[in-house]
Amino acid sequence: MPTQFDPPSGTRDFLAADAERRERAFAVIRSVFTQYGFEPLQTPAFERLDVLLGKYGEDGDKLVFKILRRGEHEASGEADLALRYDLTVPLARVAAAYGSQLPSPYKRYAIGPVWRADRPGKGRFREFVQCDLDTLGSASVLADAEALCAQHDALAALGVPDFSIQLNSRRVLAGLLEAFGVPEELGAGVLITLDKLDKMRPEAVIAELEGRGLATDDAASLVTTMTAPDAVERIRLVLKQSDVGAEGLDEVDTLLSLVALQIPPGRVAFTPRLVRGLSYYTGPIWEAVAPGVPGSIGSGGRYDHLIEQLGGPDTPATGSSLGVERILLLLPQSGAERGRLDVAVTVMAEDFARQSFDFSATARAAGLRSSVYLGGSGKLGRQLRWASDQGARWCLIYGSAEDEAGTVTVRDLRTGEQTAVPVGDLGGYLIRAAE
Amino acid sequence: MPTQFDPPSGTRDFLAADAERRERAFAVIRSVFTQYGFEPLQTPAFERLDVLLGKYGEDGDKLVFKILRRGEHEASGEADLALRYDLTVPLARVAAAYGSQLPSPYKRYAIGPVWRADRPGKGRFREFVQCDLDTLGSASVLADAEALCAQHDALAALGVPDFSIQLNSRRVLAGLLEAFGVPEELGAGVLITLDKLDKMRPEAVIAELEGRGLATDDAASLVTTMTAPDAVERIRLVLKQSDVGAEGLDEVDTLLSLVALQIPPGRVAFTPRLVRGLSYYTGPIWEAVAPGVPGSIGSGGRYDHLIEQLGGPDTPATGSSLGVERILLLLPQSGAERGRLDVAVTVMAEDFARQSFDFSATARAAGLRSSVYLGGSGKLGRQLRWASDQGARWCLIYGSAEDEAGTVTVRDLRTGEQTAVPVGDLGGYLIRAAE
Repeated sequence: MPTQFDPPSGTRDFLAADAERRERAFAVIRSVFTQYGFEPLQTPAFERLDVLLGKYGEDGDKLVFKILRRGEHEASGEADLALRYDLTVPLARVAAAYGSQLPSPYKRYAIGPVWRADRPGKGRFREFVQCDLDTLGSASVLADAEALCAQHDALAALGVPDFSIQLNSRRVLAGLLEAFGVPEELGAGVLITLDKLDKMRPEAVIAELEGRGLATDDAASLVTTMTAPDAVERIRLVLKQSDVGAEGLDEVDTLLSLVALQIPPGRVAFTPRLVRGLSYYTGPIWEAVAPGVPGSIGSGGRYDHLIEQLGGPDTPATGSSLGVERILLLLPQSGAERGRLDVAVTVMAEDFARQSFDFSATARAAGLRSSVYLGGSGKLGRQLRWASDQGARWCLIYGSAEDEAGTVTVRDLRTGEQTAVPVGDLGGYLIRAAE
Repeated sequence: MPTQFDPPSGTRDFLAADAERRERAFAVIRSVFTQYGFEPLQTPAFERLDVLLGKYGEDGDKLVFKILRRGEHEASGEADLALRYDLTVPLARVAAAYGSQLPSPYKRYAIGPVWRADRPGKGRFREFVQCDLDTLGSASVLADAEALCAQHDALAALGVPDFSIQLNSRRVLAGLLEAFGVPEELGAGVLITLDKLDKMRPEAVIAELEGRGLATDDAASLVTTMTAPDAVERIRLVLKQSDVGAEGLDEVDTLLSLVALQIPPGRVAFTPRLVRGLSYYTGPIWEAVAPGVPGSIGSGGRYDHLIEQLGGPDTPATGSSLGVERILLLLPQSGAERGRLDVAVTVMAEDFARQSFDFSATARAAGLRSSVYLGGSGKLGRQLRWASDQGARWCLIYGSAEDEAGTVTVRDLRTGEQTAVPVGDLGGYLIRAAE
């Protein structure tokens, strides 16, 4: 039951442990992408409405969060801005805006929230982070290979267990359709149906293909070939009958050869039935999957005309997108969350507050996280409980006895052992203890 | 002149150099705050409209970006959500929502964009990052001292030149008003006028105070005292005549004593004429200023009733906010921006693409940033120019001669020196060269 204090439907608050986990994952991804020479791009949360609308099809447009005009125009009920729906339309705008100021090719990554007014559900959010990497301005298969390897390296660096990558090419699919006599005008629909081979029984797929107007024999032989145990070998033979199919096969094999050093054997495989729902891909396409995760945890491909369609310059483009929200759900919760503090400092009396505050500074200067007790209780037991709640390794105690002796009591909260450390030696003592 | 490709009015695109500068600054701040035991909190970009409206006064409400309802409700022209205007209202909501799940006291920081439909201007944006640190649930002056020191340390760690911190207390101001016979109902207005002592001549301030209903003698003697060369000493004497004034002075002196070890002498000073525009402060207040920067680069104070007013629980609170956008403008542009790559790898012919791609992987495995040439030209000159544009330290060349010899040519782009390195030794060579 949502309460008045919950975040809006489909959005989340991230308290410390989650915020830190997410930040760590993003840092890992940034570091991998940077190693490949991709550079960051940050664009505003909202764009002008006309920049966004009409770019995602009718269904997409419905999911755009629109921002009401302001001041005297508010009453019109009209919108002039909208929250970004993805990171690709802003990229197209940036490519158009900055043109020759951008390096060529322009290799950029972007990690940031996007907003979609989707019906919220399990693992589906209205505010979620996308994590894209794209190269604009290169038609080279090397650019595809980089996008694929960088995505692979990020998944590996994040520690995603047992993932694998399915690789195909739009040209392979075109060759398949050609070889099986699918009329060109049926091609797009046939691909949409073939994309369901993972989820539907072959007979059901054949029936759906017939419904789309494919001859029964063609439909049956297409599906039989694609679901055969030796499907890949059979399809390799079939593709050689078609020019575009042979090109596609060559593209896939070139990619497999390029990435062979960087992606362990068996982790990436030619997967002729991989379709990818989106129609804008023009060359290689791929998806990363992990056992037990429905859908993909990453995807990518070449999309040579999309940037122009989205309002940018006419430029070849390739890229990949990590399903970072799904990946975050997949990663083991690190059991040993680090505590908030290394050194918790008690405040035994107002008279000693200044000393306690200084000890805390000394601990920070020694590179440790430290804070004083901020509550009202002067009781040691209460303050020790606080220190332990902070996950602190050490608790410092400074009362009348310590004041007289010129020492501070350092209590090791793991062992309970206490040491009287001369006040002037505290920094050095903590540095040595932390080693 | 804005073009159709510019980001929306008042917002910015951050290309690589700016995005990296900002990310580095945020990382520095996070690291300092973490050292004090503050933990991160991330809340959604938007809140329900009723959570935001009525919290910022009438003028503030006008600046809230409202989000249109969706689907069948869109035509109503009504909003149900709004972009967050600050990070404090979301904090109040989180404190109400998670209550006892939060540590006590709850020390959190938040760094993230907020949105205000302000008239855009020089250094004033509609999307800008706020950077807040707050402690809820502690009435202790030690919590104020932590907020002040953490802000100081962040400014110092960011390398802000020559900043200083002005410290005062709302109780000092109350004592001053009492001592100079300002009727209670005029207090708020008088403080607003006194806040202008930095910008207006004393006579003008006196006149404005008279306009507010203050007796001419009282107004003159108040302003004379506050602008005297020995103002601080005179005010210290005056404050002792009033209970609340003496309390305020004590609060300020306690704070000065607590932070003495951590903030270098002279960098923080009791500044009785510091008012801070906002009315919700209840105890110590401070502002960080830097020469040549109008306004403050950071501020903070105790605000014991605000969280409740904003819809949260009734809890004492203190915190500070860094003016991170102003600070970013202030920091020297690091002249030596790091290039995009350490190792740029040429592709001399299609036949050698695989090897070049592998060399690039070898360089990355050696901890260096590396990429292959993704353009269509096979000309060495062109590719060397690309390598140099990337800011690369080394360029790798692998053509027929190298292929025959089993070596790769490593060109040092600083010296122009070229070394033939056996292919199997490339990783080791680069590691040694990078040391």
